[in-house]
Amino acid sequence: MTMSKIGATEKGGVRRLTLTDLDRQSRDLFAEWASACGCTMHVDAMGNMFVHRAGTNEALPPVITGSHLDSQPTGGKFDGAYGVLAGLEVLRTLNENKIETEAALEVVMWTNEEGCRFAPACMGSATFCGAFALEYSHGRSDQEGKTVLEELKRIGYLGEGCGDRPVGAYFEAHIEQGPILEAEEKTIGVVTGAQSQRWYEITLTGMEAHAGPTPMERRKDALISAAKLVQEVNQIGLDFQPGGCATVGVLDVFPASRNVIPGRAFLTVDLRHPSDAKLAKMDEILRNTAESIAKDAELTLDLDQIWACDATNFEKSCINAVRKGAKAAGFSHRDIISGAGHDAMYVARIAPAAMIFVPCEGGISHNEIENATQDDLAAGCQVLLNAMLEKAGTH
Amino acid sequence: MTMSKIGATEKGGVRRLTLTDLDRQSRDLFAEWASACGCTMHVDAMGNMFVHRAGTNEALPPVITGSHLDSQPTGGKFDGAYGVLAGLEVLRTLNENKIETEAALEVVMWTNEEGCRFAPACMGSATFCGAFALEYSHGRSDQEGKTVLEELKRIGYLGEGCGDRPVGAYFEAHIEQGPILEAEEKTIGVVTGAQSQRWYEITLTGMEAHAGPTPMERRKDALISAAKLVQEVNQIGLDFQPGGCATVGVLDVFPASRNVIPGRAFLTVDLRHPSDAKLAKMDEILRNTAESIAKDAELTLDLDQIWACDATNFEKSCINAVRKGAKAAGFSHRDIISGAGHDAMYVARIAPAAMIFVPCEGGISHNEIENATQDDLAAGCQVLLNAMLEKAGTH
Repeated sequence: MTMSKIGATEKGGVRRLTLTDLDRQSRDLFAEWASACGCTMHVDAMGNMFVHRAGTNEALPPVITGSHLDSQPTGGKFDGAYGVLAGLEVLRTLNENKIETEAALEVVMWTNEEGCRFAPACMGSATFCGAFALEYSHGRSDQEGKTVLEELKRIGYLGEGCGDRPVGAYFEAHIEQGPILEAEEKTIGVVTGAQSQRWYEITLTGMEAHAGPTPMERRKDALISAAKLVQEVNQIGLDFQPGGCATVGVLDVFPASRNVIPGRAFLTVDLRHPSDAKLAKMDEILRNTAESIAKDAELTLDLDQIWACDATNFEKSCINAVRKGAKAAGFSHRDIISGAGHDAMYVARIAPAAMIFVPCEGGISHNEIENATQDDLAAGCQVLLNAMLEKAGTH
Repeated sequence: MTMSKIGATEKGGVRRLTLTDLDRQSRDLFAEWASACGCTMHVDAMGNMFVHRAGTNEALPPVITGSHLDSQPTGGKFDGAYGVLAGLEVLRTLNENKIETEAALEVVMWTNEEGCRFAPACMGSATFCGAFALEYSHGRSDQEGKTVLEELKRIGYLGEGCGDRPVGAYFEAHIEQGPILEAEEKTIGVVTGAQSQRWYEITLTGMEAHAGPTPMERRKDALISAAKLVQEVNQIGLDFQPGGCATVGVLDVFPASRNVIPGRAFLTVDLRHPSDAKLAKMDEILRNTAESIAKDAELTLDLDQIWACDATNFEKSCINAVRKGAKAAGFSHRDIISGAGHDAMYVARIAPAAMIFVPCEGGISHNEIENATQDDLAAGCQVLLNAMLEKAGTH
């Protein structure tokens, strides 16, 4: 709640865009709290902050947890911040209980997870994990032309080095951002992976004409076909259960006049499935359906896949540590697939990783009214502690 | 072609908004041509211009023809201007052939037919016919706050009196603005009436949520229901053949982000039918369908009818004069219903009236690429002359 005052909005959310003055304030507070835990801190060349709690065997790679403190323009209090503060809570609890671990523990605050000021998203973790080159990430600019490198320097969080060091295991606690746990009254989501995902942009072009004097049978109405496609996309999602998601989020018509038959329609499609193979099948159906709709209506079709991300399968021993941690603490739990992107998906490319989800109210996030209960958030911390201890080893 | 140079656009159309300097130029040219015909001219308090060619019996009410010289922002050369200049061509031809008529003939240029600078449309004719009060029309303002009265004064076309005088008959020649005549290779459309019309604004409200973590079965996607409604609206048009038209011209979704399930969709519906009774039935189906779609999806429905206009049935003897005039001149013809609004629809409330349509290329209008052939335009003039002579009587 203290952290959420930095960039607090009237509706109860936060606006804390990456590498702004508000982001610096949240970083300063995090650093202050980390210092109070008696930990050292390392900032890397991407501004990722690593709080280090020494283990008894520093030769072992650290067990890391964390998430991000940046938010969407109208974001919630818990998205990201929860995962960072849950990590600190683990360190505090171990300190209070004088528990030492064999491997060191670290809490990381990844830079620019949201990607709304500087694209792409998950920039800090992706660069740490070698998915993006440091120069590429440094050179990304916002709408005013300011670069990541300039802004890292300006707020005083440009460190040295990035990645290229072993990670023993990685855990990330996060609100679910979906309604499943709440609806099924489960406290903990044992996240076994993240969905495979593809994004498309589709334009259907017909002929605009007057809505009055143009008979129904002579129309080339792009919106009618777009509307069919919207329903077919939805059907693709329904046909690939469990796990499939298919969404048209944007639909624009031209010229958008109430008495003109739309000559052109633009829409975006977001397809997701936990299985790459199933997603490939969804992709094929989408393409065939769009072609067939356009052909039947004698419209021109332009379909572009603009982005894709393969499925993530988290590592078995990490998943087991989370499940075991939930069981040991007596929390109800279920396996779950992440529908959203997270830093953990990049870390999973270089280290054993898994995630812990807790319920959020109504499944709502990326929204100022995002909410979660104290009990659930505390439960997530406990499971995170159990999992980290298992992977780090105790004496 | 000379008139179309005033406000000519690069793509071959015109931009000649009502009561602008360009409108004044087109009025001045029209007045000059009318004067060259040896006619007198009267400008009324709405800026409507009446060119008068005396009859042998001035006690008879005049037979009037005309249309408008104002255009859409990206309008065509022929929409409106053709009807005004066709009237002048009739007068010139009668002069050249030294033909006198019993009733006087008049050519009118109605102010602000398009309604795009000052709403509503057909303002000059509607005021002349008593459908709008003069004070109401004078007080209408554009986006900069300038009123019709101010602009009439500024361009020097504020005359005296408006309407309240008998009209023997009214004919209006116009491009079809639809594809029927061209497709059926008919030269003349004998316009027997104009469609009944209703406009609606509909909002469907569900719940926005993340496209990734929100399972298909838990969604309240407003766009899916809007897409169903788009198709049902189209079906209403198809089910009310012949004559029915049903169009969704605008569809907006919110928040319009590619990975957010749309929580709200706004759409406009335009329903038309030549029969008021059939249109009332279409209205009923629209309302029931929208309610049922919203109920099934557990969405909130907000449906407003924002405008309506009853069907126009033109007067039989005027329709017959047009049909007979086409036959006499040897032009192929068919009866047709106007899908668009025209000044003739208001004049029909106070006098016997009909319209003459000529084909336009591809049925395209309200577009700079609007086009029509010289032969078809000339044919329309001939039919107009024949019809006016029949109603005015010759010696």
